Amino acid sequence: MGSLAFERITLIGIGLIGSSIAREIREQGMAGHVTISTRSPETLKRAEELGLGDSYTLSAAEAVKGADLVIVSVPVGASGAVAEEIAPHLKPGALVTDVGSTKASVIAQMMPHMPPHVHFIPGHPIAGTEKSGPDAGFVGLFKGRWCILTPIEGTDRDALALLRAFWEAMGSMVDEMDPQHHDKVLAIVSHLPHIIAYNIVGTADDLETVTESEVIKYSASGFRDFTRLAASDPTMWRDVCLHNKDAILEMLARFSEDLAYLQRAIRWGEGDKLFELFTRTRAIRRSIVQAGQDVDAPDFGRHALDPK
Amino acid sequence: MGSLAFERITLIGIGLIGSSIAREIREQGMAGHVTISTRSPETLKRAEELGLGDSYTLSAAEAVKGADLVIVSVPVGASGAVAEEIAPHLKPGALVTDVGSTKASVIAQMMPHMPPHVHFIPGHPIAGTEKSGPDAGFVGLFKGRWCILTPIEGTDRDALALLRAFWEAMGSMVDEMDPQHHDKVLAIVSHLPHIIAYNIVGTADDLETVTESEVIKYSASGFRDFTRLAASDPTMWRDVCLHNKDAILEMLARFSEDLAYLQRAIRWGEGDKLFELFTRTRAIRRSIVQAGQDVDAPDFGRHALDPK
Ligand SMILES: NC(=O)c1ccc[n+]([C@@H]2O[C@H](COP(=O)([O-])OP(=O)(O)OC[C@H]3O[C@@H](n4cnc5c(N)ncnc54)[C@H](OP(=O)(O)O)[C@@H]3O)[C@@H](O)[C@H]2O)c1
Ligand SMILES: NC(=O)c1ccc[n+]([C@@H]2O[C@H](COP(=O)([O-])OP(=O)(O)OC[C@H]3O[C@@H](n4cnc5c(N)ncnc54)[C@H](OP(=O)(O)O)[C@@H]3O)[C@@H](O)[C@H]2O)c1
Repeated sequence: MGSLAFERITLIGIGLIGSSIAREIREQGMAGHVTISTRSPETLKRAEELGLGDSYTLSAAEAVKGADLVIVSVPVGASGAVAEEIAPHLKPGALVTDVGSTKASVIAQMMPHMPPHVHFIPGHPIAGTEKSGPDAGFVGLFKGRWCILTPIEGTDRDALALLRAFWEAMGSMVDEMDPQHHDKVLAIVSHLPHIIAYNIVGTADDLETVTESEVIKYSASGFRDFTRLAASDPTMWRDVCLHNKDAILEMLARFSEDLAYLQRAIRWGEGDKLFELFTRTRAIRRSIVQAGQDVDAPDFGRHALDPK
Repeated sequence: MGSLAFERITLIGIGLIGSSIAREIREQGMAGHVTISTRSPETLKRAEELGLGDSYTLSAAEAVKGADLVIVSVPVGASGAVAEEIAPHLKPGALVTDVGSTKASVIAQMMPHMPPHVHFIPGHPIAGTEKSGPDAGFVGLFKGRWCILTPIEGTDRDALALLRAFWEAMGSMVDEMDPQHHDKVLAIVSHLPHIIAYNIVGTADDLETVTESEVIKYSASGFRDFTRLAASDPTMWRDVCLHNKDAILEMLARFSEDLAYLQRAIRWGEGDKLFELFTRTRAIRRSIVQAGQDVDAPDFGRHALDPK
């Protein structure tokens, strides 16, 4: 076992995020016993085939019995029901956390069910891909990425330190934040980009003057960059939209206002305004690359992998 | 020399596209002599250091003398001036083409200057990256990508066949299209994506409630995908916006209309509408990957290259 070890860890939900956590735990020998629980027999069977844990059950209530650490990795709309199901079976002193992409709503859903004798600390790893399910996870997903914890007032400092250490063992850097602020930040860095990507792919799909085959053939000129985000899991993203509504609508309003300004500049041929914006936006990419949050290779380095 | 060879090829403009063409010509020995011309002494010097041609000059007029094939690779707003400058010096029978991202405007700018004794056939390789300048080019940029030619009525069939063969030698597949239709197709597959990307990066940059450092740190959750396109050359993209105004405004209107629908679905919690759109968009990515126009690796395969 590694230096940071738990007697029993329970993972509820074993998709991209849950199974990446499971693989890290296995890789580093971080737990005496890992219990895996998920909703469907198919996913549970696949998790077992992949050897992601030590025992497997469809019952979340059964799964949490005796666990020191419980990690809930299900779509945010399902977190209330999961909390309600596991609550009566949690061991006193257990640390309960989640990985949901929205935080105020998850807290509102889960907190009321949590017994006073457990430590509930919500979290969100800022790492992922467009793939889902237990086969999509991998060791290294969280490496060099941030994980945001949004502790509730009065949270036990030791429990918080333990959860920080857990995410650091996953390879992450850890930040703490107010849940409302988290939801605003994520609305702009994650939720709006996904919504915009879904939207433009939808627009292209609906055109009468340009065929789908043309869109596909010529997509390397820009469009394909959006299709990655727009291939993300529909359930997860429906839930995110429904559970971070206010912050998303606020960011959408800002985006649309800015787009109207740009549209007007195009209509009136105001090249200087276009040039000013197109210059300013380069600096942000440079900073992202410098911060190690993206690669600098042209086209995300994908021609290195492109078979064609 | 390869099987497809020209006595003299002249490249006017030696940035990402021009220098990628130069590298392919050199690699395959496609020309007896390659002349390179560009606007600035700095770029010309760099092209010479890179050994991209056989002779180098700041004068486009000088450069085209005696050339069998002339390829103009400058921002679309500059094509008229280049055409005017080179026109009196073109050899009878010369094939003149361009690589500009808009076609109706380039034709309107260049065609009036072209003497009747040359073959002017506009073109557009659907390949590129967010980088620019002579160092950004590379062998293989055009491989497996489409190149669209938009021949003018009455174009000589042999000249057209020669230009097709040239682009096929570059590794491309060639399509022919009406210039107006080209501009519409490109407005949705390339111009709108770039404008949207520039816009969202601008919106994020302007927020008061979320800091720039937060945007950078958490960008791996979606935002960073947009920053690649938004790091593209400002001059090129200003010119594209100014020279494909009508088609871009049409696509922007469609996009905004669809976004308003999505916004309303979020506001009223219409999960089924969101789910429907988020499901439909996955199919397009699948087709793009199947068509060899993108890689299927999660995150564009970039963690394979990520040093972190
Ligand atoms: N994907 C990302 O990039 C990313 C990044 C950071 C955080 N997150 C968050 O992480 C969580 C999990 O996302 P993921 O990408 O790992 O999803 P995923 O690959 O689709 O896996 C989802 C898991 O949740 C289970 N599940 C689905 N619906 C459920 C329901 N109604 N009740 C109980 N369990 C249910 C699934 O079970 P079955 O397969 O057995 O049905 C599966 O085990 C979400 O809250 C998401 O917001 C995602
Ligand atoms: N980048 C892409 O992804 C892409 C893809 C397909 C087509 N295109 C089209 O290809 C063309 C070239 O793009 P690029 O990416 O190769 O650009 P680039 O790397 O920025 O290079 C531009 C070239 O044009 C010259 N130039 C710039 N302004 C000029 C002016 N006013 N008059 C004369 N020459 C000028 C530059 O000369 P100096 O450096 O000496 O100033 C340089 O040689 C554009 O029309 C673009 O729309 C681009």
